[in-house]
Amino acid sequence: MKNFADRLIEVIQEKGSPIAVGLDPQLQYIPQEIKDKAFKDHGQGFKGASWAILEFNRKVLDVVSPYTGVVKLQVAFYELLGPWGMEAYRKTITYAQKKGLVTIGDIKRGDVEHTALAYAQAHLGEVKLDKTTLQGYGTDSVTLNPYLGGDSIAPFLKVAEEKDKGLFILVKTTNPSSRDFQDLSASDGERFFEKVAKKVGQWGKGLIGKNGYSSVGAVVGAQYPRTASRLRHLIPRAFFLVPGYGAQGAGARGLDAYFNTDGYGAIISSSRSIIFAYLYPPCKGKTVDWEEAVRQAVVKMHSEVAETAERAKRRSSHRL
Amino acid sequence: MKNFADRLIEVIQEKGSPIAVGLDPQLQYIPQEIKDKAFKDHGQGFKGASWAILEFNRKVLDVVSPYTGVVKLQVAFYELLGPWGMEAYRKTITYAQKKGLVTIGDIKRGDVEHTALAYAQAHLGEVKLDKTTLQGYGTDSVTLNPYLGGDSIAPFLKVAEEKDKGLFILVKTTNPSSRDFQDLSASDGERFFEKVAKKVGQWGKGLIGKNGYSSVGAVVGAQYPRTASRLRHLIPRAFFLVPGYGAQGAGARGLDAYFNTDGYGAIISSSRSIIFAYLYPPCKGKTVDWEEAVRQAVVKMHSEVAETAERAKRRSSHRL
Repeated sequence: MKNFADRLIEVIQEKGSPIAVGLDPQLQYIPQEIKDKAFKDHGQGFKGASWAILEFNRKVLDVVSPYTGVVKLQVAFYELLGPWGMEAYRKTITYAQKKGLVTIGDIKRGDVEHTALAYAQAHLGEVKLDKTTLQGYGTDSVTLNPYLGGDSIAPFLKVAEEKDKGLFILVKTTNPSSRDFQDLSASDGERFFEKVAKKVGQWGKGLIGKNGYSSVGAVVGAQYPRTASRLRHLIPRAFFLVPGYGAQGAGARGLDAYFNTDGYGAIISSSRSIIFAYLYPPCKGKTVDWEEAVRQAVVKMHSEVAETAERAKRRSSHRL
Repeated sequence: MKNFADRLIEVIQEKGSPIAVGLDPQLQYIPQEIKDKAFKDHGQGFKGASWAILEFNRKVLDVVSPYTGVVKLQVAFYELLGPWGMEAYRKTITYAQKKGLVTIGDIKRGDVEHTALAYAQAHLGEVKLDKTTLQGYGTDSVTLNPYLGGDSIAPFLKVAEEKDKGLFILVKTTNPSSRDFQDLSASDGERFFEKVAKKVGQWGKGLIGKNGYSSVGAVVGAQYPRTASRLRHLIPRAFFLVPGYGAQGAGARGLDAYFNTDGYGAIISSSRSIIFAYLYPPCKGKTVDWEEAVRQAVVKMHSEVAETAERAKRRSSHRL
């Protein structure tokens, strides 16, 4: 295997744009024909619903995999459907990995050390049973919540090191209430999320790949270019996972600040506005095939974000 | 149904002590005879392991239910075993509720609003499918991580209000690294966890029961009596869920500060030192039946904590 950050850069180069498509399969938005078949074949309950989201995900992955090297799965929408939903989660991960995609499990877990170890084994590592050892969900990386501090991250660091996995620690999230606590100023004038960012830098020191990036990254919402600029300076070696492009409001404008001047260091992520593109402009209200809508949306994002990353490089040349 | 905090007080009165037993079924510590049978009946994989923890939980619940009104399930140890593990989680909750116990899902989730809604529906509420609406995991309450702020809690508040469920927000956790961020001082001198506690008080205002307590509580580790005293003052109407008694180090001494002078307001929780009591003193190394060890441990905890709550009341009389 290879350092996670190096693998990220490899798939970004291969696909030509640093984007991630978010597989947040909310059942109510999944095309009816997929649901009808799944519920007919597997019953009206959680099993049928889980097969519907799995089938939807596979079709989305078939469409987006030429354009994106990374997919992010929001586990909540799988957890919502009970154990069958988690089976769909596992199968989606496997399907994406067979297509050569790097997977991010958006799990946002955080717990005391011996519990965090269980989460790390479940999602990134192996699970030791009585006489056998089995693979867990097997995503390539996960998102984590930092509220419990260093010892809640340590077991994930250990598994990440052993298995060449990646971590993205929540630093500054997209939601309006992220200001409630993340933006509070500490007694030394630094904001709380800056304290977290500095720790992210420390936690990632032992996992730097040959391209100079760490396998320990940070989640930084797309709406905060000035914050991103400050964080870029604070933790240059951290890859930023940047949600909030598309349905959550932000366009590609202003995203330059999330990249380093080598054109790397950020993965721009979009979920609903890609996978449910048929419900958003410019497709909304038109009779566009839903898969064609996905294709058009991901192509547009691919090109906008690739341009942004290029601009970040030119910014460097201008400076010279 | 009845306000969650009122239900808590009811089961505390019924069982005579404000304790919770934590069902953290780590497979390696489960008695071999239970594992052997489960793996024989259901195979060596996740299914067998999940049946082992389910069977273990049932036996523990049979032993502890005369002494405790509350059980806390750490979901990580179920998630560790994949979809079958989540089935064991669901079945354990159902079994506990049939015995009249109040359940706490120790899930520590936290996400942006529309994702938090999925978690809230999955764990506390109902899940709307295409033609049916099904119950989720159905715990009576969950623990939540506050890092994302108010809008990440809002969907849980809504479901809690509709379904008379409870929430426990992480304020000050048991682990040593809780100091990394939770203990940081803000520019006004208050510590970060105090900022969180104040929000807990605000979030819980609309969910106060007839006993004066809110359905929105706080997680406060057992090792911090001085902190607890400050928090007790800051958010008098919040029930404290207090982990860290037993295996994590704290005894009943010093726990008075977690209670109000009515003798309520705290649930003292212990996991490993009860359910795996055969591995801890005074049973460790002795040939005590594991279920008898559980019984002795829960009886001891029941009486120590009941005494503590009584002492908190006497503290009140002394003051008068």
